[in-house]
Amino acid sequence: FVAGWFAKSTRGKNETREASSRHLKEKFTRLPHLAGTEQNLKYAEQIRTEWLQFGLDSVETVPYDVLLSYPNKSQPNYISIVDHLGNEVFNTSLAEPVPEGYEDVSDIVPPYNAFSAKGHPEGDLVYVNYGRTEDFFHLKKMNVSVTGTIVIMRYGKIFRGNKVKNAQSAGAVGIILFSDPSDYSANGTKAYPDGWNLPSGGVQRGNVLNLNGAGDPLTPGYPAKEYTYRLSMEDGVGLPKIPVHPVCADDAVNLLKTVRMNIHTNNRVTRIYNVIGRIHGALEPDRYVILGGHRDAWVFGGIDPMSGAAVVHEIVRSAGRLLSKGWRPRRTIIFASWDAEEFGLLGSTEWAEDNAKLLQERAVAYINADSAIEGMYTLRVDCTPSLHTLVYDLTKQIASPEEGEEAVSLYESWHKRDNWTNDRDAKLGSGSDFEAYFIRLGIAAGRARYTKNKKLEQYSSYPVYHSVYETFEVVEKFYDPSFRRLRAVAQVRGGLIFLLADSQLLPLDVNQYADSLRKYTQSISQLAQSHPEGMEMYEVSFDSLFSAVQNFTDAARDFHSRLQSLNRENPLQVRVMNDQLMYLERAFIDPLGLPSRPFYRHVIFAPSSHNKYAGESFPGIYDALFDIENSADPQKAWEEVKRQISIAAFTVHAAAMTLRPPA
Amino acid sequence: FVAGWFAKSTRGKNETREASSRHLKEKFTRLPHLAGTEQNLKYAEQIRTEWLQFGLDSVETVPYDVLLSYPNKSQPNYISIVDHLGNEVFNTSLAEPVPEGYEDVSDIVPPYNAFSAKGHPEGDLVYVNYGRTEDFFHLKKMNVSVTGTIVIMRYGKIFRGNKVKNAQSAGAVGIILFSDPSDYSANGTKAYPDGWNLPSGGVQRGNVLNLNGAGDPLTPGYPAKEYTYRLSMEDGVGLPKIPVHPVCADDAVNLLKTVRMNIHTNNRVTRIYNVIGRIHGALEPDRYVILGGHRDAWVFGGIDPMSGAAVVHEIVRSAGRLLSKGWRPRRTIIFASWDAEEFGLLGSTEWAEDNAKLLQERAVAYINADSAIEGMYTLRVDCTPSLHTLVYDLTKQIASPEEGEEAVSLYESWHKRDNWTNDRDAKLGSGSDFEAYFIRLGIAAGRARYTKNKKLEQYSSYPVYHSVYETFEVVEKFYDPSFRRLRAVAQVRGGLIFLLADSQLLPLDVNQYADSLRKYTQSISQLAQSHPEGMEMYEVSFDSLFSAVQNFTDAARDFHSRLQSLNRENPLQVRVMNDQLMYLERAFIDPLGLPSRPFYRHVIFAPSSHNKYAGESFPGIYDALFDIENSADPQKAWEEVKRQISIAAFTVHAAAMTLRPPA
Repeated sequence: FVAGWFAKSTRGKNETREASSRHLKEKFTRLPHLAGTEQNLKYAEQIRTEWLQFGLDSVETVPYDVLLSYPNKSQPNYISIVDHLGNEVFNTSLAEPVPEGYEDVSDIVPPYNAFSAKGHPEGDLVYVNYGRTEDFFHLKKMNVSVTGTIVIMRYGKIFRGNKVKNAQSAGAVGIILFSDPSDYSANGTKAYPDGWNLPSGGVQRGNVLNLNGAGDPLTPGYPAKEYTYRLSMEDGVGLPKIPVHPVCADDAVNLLKTVRMNIHTNNRVTRIYNVIGRIHGALEPDRYVILGGHRDAWVFGGIDPMSGAAVVHEIVRSAGRLLSKGWRPRRTIIFASWDAEEFGLLGSTEWAEDNAKLLQERAVAYINADSAIEGMYTLRVDCTPSLHTLVYDLTKQIASPEEGEEAVSLYESWHKRDNWTNDRDAKLGSGSDFEAYFIRLGIAAGRARYTKNKKLEQYSSYPVYHSVYETFEVVEKFYDPSFRRLRAVAQVRGGLIFLLADSQLLPLDVNQYADSLRKYTQSISQLAQSHPEGMEMYEVSFDSLFSAVQNFTDAARDFHSRLQSLNRENPLQVRVMNDQLMYLERAFIDPLGLPSRPFYRHVIFAPSSHNKYAGESFPGIYDALFDIENSADPQKAWEEVKRQISIAAFTVHAAAMTLRPPA
Repeated sequence: FVAGWFAKSTRGKNETREASSRHLKEKFTRLPHLAGTEQNLKYAEQIRTEWLQFGLDSVETVPYDVLLSYPNKSQPNYISIVDHLGNEVFNTSLAEPVPEGYEDVSDIVPPYNAFSAKGHPEGDLVYVNYGRTEDFFHLKKMNVSVTGTIVIMRYGKIFRGNKVKNAQSAGAVGIILFSDPSDYSANGTKAYPDGWNLPSGGVQRGNVLNLNGAGDPLTPGYPAKEYTYRLSMEDGVGLPKIPVHPVCADDAVNLLKTVRMNIHTNNRVTRIYNVIGRIHGALEPDRYVILGGHRDAWVFGGIDPMSGAAVVHEIVRSAGRLLSKGWRPRRTIIFASWDAEEFGLLGSTEWAEDNAKLLQERAVAYINADSAIEGMYTLRVDCTPSLHTLVYDLTKQIASPEEGEEAVSLYESWHKRDNWTNDRDAKLGSGSDFEAYFIRLGIAAGRARYTKNKKLEQYSSYPVYHSVYETFEVVEKFYDPSFRRLRAVAQVRGGLIFLLADSQLLPLDVNQYADSLRKYTQSISQLAQSHPEGMEMYEVSFDSLFSAVQNFTDAARDFHSRLQSLNRENPLQVRVMNDQLMYLERAFIDPLGLPSRPFYRHVIFAPSSHNKYAGESFPGIYDALFDIENSADPQKAWEEVKRQISIAAFTVHAAAMTLRPPA
């Protein structure tokens, strides 16, 4: 079987693979390759050339002209403490100390928050913890106003764009973000280069948009082509209106009561390049299985994204080897190297907008390939419920990469290490390139990577995240010296792609979706029960949703039993049932979108409105319940809860219908 | 071939057909059957029973609970002239004189405008001609204000809902609509029952909503099921805020300077019933060809809709005969008897909302079956461009129903009588049940009926439209005494259904779509050229749209030539190309909708914002250009034109992509 073959072919060639992984990572992580720069275009061209050499049927470079944001080279960004005469008596550092071995590298972009407004706000400093909704509630309760102030918030817990939105809504005139060592240092290791912690001079870069899936801020809903109409900068989606700037821990401790920000970052429409490679399907060329991950990095991208891009490169090479031996998958496989993910998932979203009609009708699944590693402990998979069974089956065929687990499967290792909680198959949130495919278009999606021990390691993300210290060496020395963890991730991602593309019957499990829907419904109704008085006063009931889930469960079970008796010799009958499997995820899309988020259209999964990274189930109901406590008009808030329950019930019923016999 | 067989089987049995048509029409037009009434449910049950007897595989009655509107039985609606003491010195009539033979019929709903607000406004009367946008512009230019007045407008030219919207926006406090004899009398005939003109005591009923495709006003976007959340009446879509009432010509001439309206009409959530019958497809059960038309009538529905419903009934009977002889179509055929069309296309729209996921993925085409006849001259077909070729091919196989044209095909007769202008294949606007299928969901659609001589007959619609005089007799005595015209319409509607359902390759012509797109682009760019100064000042160009149309034209031609070399023995290859044909219309849907009209999503065809009945091509651009002259901010108006051109160009490019080889 292809995936088995693939796993085997790679398993037997450890030396080659490790060498090639090293080679690749060294090749693609020596130079900064920020989106919109010449170096990132060069890497695109190199990838295109190599994918063609590997044997793909076609590889094209697809440009878009999107809004990016860069520091002004002649006027650096910094934050000052000013004395009573207005003199700047202390300035934050303009750059991170460059790591050893990279001293001669030019074009390292200084730490900044992309899409910050320009400006020189001056004001008192207010500390707002992580800048979460609850942190601002807390200040409000304490009668601390942030209006007219500059807020300082630490990175972590939630997406930085949500912090900025909260601060801006609260009336702040400027925002400073910093990496608190308690959030960006792990126990038992040292600061880079002696370990994998963030040095005290290190800073996390990152965009501070609130796009909610819009892609390019100036062309929401449409691909940013040359002829495309662009909104004015004032009307652009999700652009902050005030300056935002990140500082290192060393600088943060020095900032006193009153500060001045000096921000000169420019927004600029810039050309970006996706690389799209294809293997044409032999029998169903109009069915697409997609493996996509980004190429652009804030600096070297040692982990983010090149540990993932290396995996994609290896999978393409394996596929090419198979093609040269006469194999061809049943369905079309599309490989994508996205650009400008760091600026708001722009490359992947523009391509999704460009190809929306084709994808809606033809895409079977999207597997994401961002960073392959964010820890050294075990596997992490976030995916749509219908992929669970496939993930389990596949990981049973893959060896554990851990020392001393030579005879153990990845599945067993993962099971044992993660204690097999309900959280194992985590819900997809956002923050990487699957977003448009899953949450806007309703394509079954998943992601897999190696992660930390969630219970014991409490730091945010991984310490050197988005700093200049994300080098090839941090992976080679600390995260995966044998490159076996990366190989395991490659086997998971590649195995998913090969099985989805080449199985006669799509390996999607509708019963799993039914189970998850039931679990989510129980969970959201319990959440609502934390307001028993409102539930009673406004006659709120989840009966319609439970009943819809029951209907879906019955439909899924019946579908599954029809699948057992399917005549697999009849190509049209196989296609009809495969189409039902493929379109199931699409059935959860509401074309009207979630409230105020027209590009988040998945009724079952979307990021929370309070943290883009967190995937919530029944996000419409969740957000409506969140608003109950703080609404000035409780009746209106409860009416919205009822409306969202009704939409969820309808959507689940509609999805159930798609599983019934088609005529 | 099936359609030939069908045409032949019916052509040879004139006597039977005529008898059965008469029988049917007599059976379904003896009693009023307004939506939401017991009689209309009885007809639904009768249709269900008979369709099952005819041999359909399944027939179900599908209920929805939608907002309808009825006069208050104990407080009649009327309009008065009041003297200076406030006494009512003249009242408009409460009912139309009942036609001969129907004197004992109860439950004839008096003339009213459904969804009128309640109220007793009093005010000076201002005449606003047809109530079109240009009529209100004209008044404004003449410095006549309608604020605080009651406007009186004649029926005709545009949809009455647009008149009401215009008057309400202009500040009127009440609206009177009347049928001017110059719009509702034809030359050479007399008033009913001596001819087919509207008697001077006759009144046109009709709803005055501005739904823009929303369906039930309280559940926009979702089916109106028991569990569905309903908006409050104030938030309902498209409900007029002021009283509206229709009067006959006799009353209209009596209305003087100051009048009082007395309107007690109630909105009420009411159960309605669609009847849905199915023939399961033999090879592709998951591909749907739909024939739908409404059953509810304002009174007897002699023309509207029962002349169309009779045709559907006959087609179902023919299909049943075929099934009993062992035939079964390749694809699934769905027959629908819609309810509450007269109240805003409610039955058809709710079912479309309920089944949106299935329809999006599976519907090949929708053929509408409202009134089969509105004149005695020739055929009228409004359809999507890809159906043109099929319509021509089919009508060449059907005999002309006209006396003295026994040897002539319907195609030739139609060609000769209509002079084969560009308008022959008119664009679909709205005003009947195809709307949700075509304009919201992007399903290829068409309608066919017998019509008047557009050049010589200048009256609006047909004179007795929506009056109590729309009886079976008006058809039998005047419109189609031999019932041959109805038969021809049945052959066209039925032939389309059978050919779409049973052809191995879908009979949709992509080259015709390319031709039409080119024609529409030329036409809209010429319209823009009527503002040469603005075009130049704001650098407006149609180049991107012309270029997209060229791309589409190339893709269509290539697709067509690939179709010629298709291996028809390979079921998957046939399915792949059929899917491309089926999904072409879907590619013109923009999920974001047209500006302020989220349920009108077809970028190529939608009703004008100024007249729901009129189908416009490139409606987004058209509406933007319309606003140029009256906008307070010309730059903003021109920016919108540019944005709409960009959206149109993108959509046409995207549609072209769907025709390219899929991998």
